[in-house]
Amino acid sequence: MRAVGILAGAGGLVEAVVAACKREARPYFIIAFEDQSDPEFIKDHPHVWVGLGQVGKVITSLRQAGAQDLVLAGAFKRPSFSSLKTDFMGARWLAQLIGKSMGDDALLRFIMAKLEGEGFKIVAAEDLVGATLLGGAGLLTKKAPSKEHLLDIKRGLAILDALSESDVGQAVVIQEGLVLGIEAVEGTQALVTRTGEYKRAGRHAPLLIKAFKRAQDGRADRPTLGAQTIEALEAAGFAGVAFEAGEVILLDQDAMAQAANNKDLFIYGFTRD
Amino acid sequence: MRAVGILAGAGGLVEAVVAACKREARPYFIIAFEDQSDPEFIKDHPHVWVGLGQVGKVITSLRQAGAQDLVLAGAFKRPSFSSLKTDFMGARWLAQLIGKSMGDDALLRFIMAKLEGEGFKIVAAEDLVGATLLGGAGLLTKKAPSKEHLLDIKRGLAILDALSESDVGQAVVIQEGLVLGIEAVEGTQALVTRTGEYKRAGRHAPLLIKAFKRAQDGRADRPTLGAQTIEALEAAGFAGVAFEAGEVILLDQDAMAQAANNKDLFIYGFTRD
Repeated sequence: MRAVGILAGAGGLVEAVVAACKREARPYFIIAFEDQSDPEFIKDHPHVWVGLGQVGKVITSLRQAGAQDLVLAGAFKRPSFSSLKTDFMGARWLAQLIGKSMGDDALLRFIMAKLEGEGFKIVAAEDLVGATLLGGAGLLTKKAPSKEHLLDIKRGLAILDALSESDVGQAVVIQEGLVLGIEAVEGTQALVTRTGEYKRAGRHAPLLIKAFKRAQDGRADRPTLGAQTIEALEAAGFAGVAFEAGEVILLDQDAMAQAANNKDLFIYGFTRD
Repeated sequence: MRAVGILAGAGGLVEAVVAACKREARPYFIIAFEDQSDPEFIKDHPHVWVGLGQVGKVITSLRQAGAQDLVLAGAFKRPSFSSLKTDFMGARWLAQLIGKSMGDDALLRFIMAKLEGEGFKIVAAEDLVGATLLGGAGLLTKKAPSKEHLLDIKRGLAILDALSESDVGQAVVIQEGLVLGIEAVEGTQALVTRTGEYKRAGRHAPLLIKAFKRAQDGRADRPTLGAQTIEALEAAGFAGVAFEAGEVILLDQDAMAQAANNKDLFIYGFTRD
């Protein structure tokens, strides 16, 4: 079994990847990033803590742990380049980025290419956890989107597709054709909470729409939904969530569907025409 | 002099239009919308209060006041269609909108066409106030954007242009290539305040970028900056604001420039290549 190095961002995906490694008795080692990874979970697993700019330390640690495959798991808050404390190798990587105005995916593709240049293979989380990690097409819940919600899904997908050319935006909130919010760096939870404040009285409550950026590399920063998303949707008075089938990670689908059914929300996987 | 009917949204533009009418001794009459217009200013001027759905009352009032030209001044919060209380004529207009998922501009174009069908002429605020209402190209302040800010302006304009095809988005906040926020219904003030929370330590503070949606009709809902915007930028720790020259309303440019100079912010009018 090839050993896996897990570059750990925030959120439940790190746990799912670790669970998959244990299930297959695959050796793993976690690179925990300051201000990014979850210390509570990580302390019970083989790991090292590093700063985002300590590229040399990351690579040395991965080699010492015998990692051959790497997985980028979870969400990363992106710092400003000028605030990064880099080691020697980090400074060399950073020098190649100065003066560029890059989106998240362009940046992640740069990092993945550099890591592959060091001899590691980057694998997708779903290759480790299993394809069921990605939500499929159709309804997961008793409640279904209304005809108006289906129109909003179309409109939301058009907006996310337009934005994906600029390498930004994974989620949008719409109510009866009105775009209540577009996600940038704030994260889906914050998007849902703030757009809950802008919603209108009306027959159709807002819905959250998540899709995969067309320019995106699926091995990094895949859009993710979890039980926490359902809680946020309920608290904000939404009707449900629609996601691009086969492209969005659903963490613990059973718990999500149960929570949504309890709260009369829909979870719906849409496909492109 | 043709009499002007002012459909009054929120913000200082209504005052600027009224001042221009008085300067030219042009008769005017304000249609004040519940939950939209500013009662404090409006009470001292000829006006009637209506609900957004009371189309018949709007048109009758405008005719009684002798209005021939109409100006849409200020920002309107859009309600959900299903919450609108309409009169007979409003219900007939609304019936033509049901089942459509429209952006703000498509909706405003629909409304303007209907009003012109009733015999009114829709004029732009800058035709009444004067072309100086729109900010020109170049710097208004001592401080200028950095080279990195100029890169961010390019990136911001590309994002706003991509969104404008979906008829949404007039503003974006970027810091060193990272998109901190994209405006939907929340308004520029709220966008600036929330993205101030997401900014990174770094050499270049974020900037606000405002442009004109390409599909937009300039007679309605033109992007607007005012002294309040400068206050919000300062409170949020921004470097400044860049706007599309000749396309964005600057309310009280002298006050804006003075406030920005006091706080070491830039105000910069950019042009398309």
